[in-house]
Amino acid sequence: MAKLLLKARLALELPSINAALNRAAKALPEPVQPVAQYIFDAGGKRLRPFLTVLTARLLGYRQADVYDLAITLEMLHAATLLHDDVLDNATNRRGKAAAHTVFEIPPTILAGDALLAQANAQVAAFGDTRLTRCFSEATSQTAAGEILEIAAQRRVDVSAEEYADIVRGKTAWLIRASCQMGALLAGGDATQVTAAADYGENLGMAFQMVDDAIDFAPESITGKPTGGDAREGKLTPPLRLYRLSLPATEQTAFDAAFTCGLITEKDAIDIAGRIRKAGFDTLTRQDAEGYLAAARAALEKLPDGSERELMRQMADYVRDRQK
Amino acid sequence: MAKLLLKARLALELPSINAALNRAAKALPEPVQPVAQYIFDAGGKRLRPFLTVLTARLLGYRQADVYDLAITLEMLHAATLLHDDVLDNATNRRGKAAAHTVFEIPPTILAGDALLAQANAQVAAFGDTRLTRCFSEATSQTAAGEILEIAAQRRVDVSAEEYADIVRGKTAWLIRASCQMGALLAGGDATQVTAAADYGENLGMAFQMVDDAIDFAPESITGKPTGGDAREGKLTPPLRLYRLSLPATEQTAFDAAFTCGLITEKDAIDIAGRIRKAGFDTLTRQDAEGYLAAARAALEKLPDGSERELMRQMADYVRDRQK
Repeated sequence: MAKLLLKARLALELPSINAALNRAAKALPEPVQPVAQYIFDAGGKRLRPFLTVLTARLLGYRQADVYDLAITLEMLHAATLLHDDVLDNATNRRGKAAAHTVFEIPPTILAGDALLAQANAQVAAFGDTRLTRCFSEATSQTAAGEILEIAAQRRVDVSAEEYADIVRGKTAWLIRASCQMGALLAGGDATQVTAAADYGENLGMAFQMVDDAIDFAPESITGKPTGGDAREGKLTPPLRLYRLSLPATEQTAFDAAFTCGLITEKDAIDIAGRIRKAGFDTLTRQDAEGYLAAARAALEKLPDGSERELMRQMADYVRDRQK
Repeated sequence: MAKLLLKARLALELPSINAALNRAAKALPEPVQPVAQYIFDAGGKRLRPFLTVLTARLLGYRQADVYDLAITLEMLHAATLLHDDVLDNATNRRGKAAAHTVFEIPPTILAGDALLAQANAQVAAFGDTRLTRCFSEATSQTAAGEILEIAAQRRVDVSAEEYADIVRGKTAWLIRASCQMGALLAGGDATQVTAAADYGENLGMAFQMVDDAIDFAPESITGKPTGGDAREGKLTPPLRLYRLSLPATEQTAFDAAFTCGLITEKDAIDIAGRIRKAGFDTLTRQDAEGYLAAARAALEKLPDGSERELMRQMADYVRDRQK
């Protein structure tokens, strides 16, 4: 029931969010418009703009321009995806061919740059320096998170704290900023702005941890090859727990393969099976619950209202997500 | 004499400009700091921050934080160079190995992203929405100019107007914004802000046209292989004039080679010689003079002062530049 309400509201907001995204794509330099349209049309949950809209509405903001602000973080997110796929040499994104395999690398990189520039201009048009600072901080933090992630790649000594710092940058800060910008636009007071930011950051941390657990679920459930993180040299929480559980000789072998990027698809399927058997993915979901509790606690500092209830359900959705 | 004064003032400002750039590099995520430091240390004229400082000082701004604002457009410029070199597969930049050949492609792209993010944050920290709008517009225009330039590559039908639009985006807008931001920071009135922007835009247009002329100068003067633009498929003004001067059969041959990117180093040397003999490079410099006259006229709307005199000399420097 709760989940149905969340879906209904998202369905209600989606046309306005997508219309704003289409407007933004059309405001880009003509040659890169198809690249932006492609990555927008490839789907994605629109989680970020949805959160901006919910937060702003909860705090009483009624104007329609909320959508033009809400999508700026989705634009930044899309820019990140375009650049990431080039960096990772990824061939697929959201079940479709990665943009750079369709449009070649230069237009893809430039489309990312143009999206970021256009998003900046769109935030600046609101004429509120708090919004601008929030957006530029999110841009910096996201870039920093990605950079730290690449620097940590194929390293077996990435600590839980270091990993949390990476996730805070690459995933959580954008979701944090989505909520914070909604609160700022609505003219929320300092407590409300902080509460919205806290909610978003903790939701984002949990979102990524659950994502890390799902990465080791069977392909039959997720539709994606299992254990992609292991093959890409990302020591996510389930994989760190797995590695620590190995006897010394096996650990040495794992370290060698992981460090040299030699984990095959077959190895990954095997590792994923052992992770699920030992419950390391479940353990990671349980750890995410700590962040979700913090997110729910932050919500208590926001006014009661239907959107707050939906934001609480969003935490359940993040927890229960299977793919 | 005049030129000596300009050099002396630049020498006076350079340490503060470079110190601000070093501070900015150290504020970046640790893994990409060396990439940023590398592109900063590779030199460049620091024309953009210098113009911000001159404009702000001319309009009475005395505070030291002008350097932290001034370098934001140099950071954007550096980000552009990093991405451009990746896109162009360039091996050299400012006489040194291109960053991506030293640091590989992913850190180079991410360093560009991080520089742009940090520059945005640094402008946002001034808490003035006019500065933020000016900076984000410059980012958008620069990205648009580069995109249009790539879309125009190897096309023989690029008109003078289309080329001017490209140059306005990829080169002139950043220089325009450098002057405009200096005026905004100093609290200049609307006439002064517009005059500063006009000066910068026209100076930037002239700067690029002279650059286009210099591209066909002998390597013995510039230290760079001659006719690079011809080989890269850029129909700059001297090359457009050259193409139009060719008899029909020769033009057909040129078009085929240019369109397919088959102009060799030897061809380029030959074309450059014929361009110089026909004076198409000189003609381009003369066309640039129109922009410089507009730049000088804009200066008249700014207060009299030593910096205005230096800005006038800057126009002479752009005109007389041999490499």
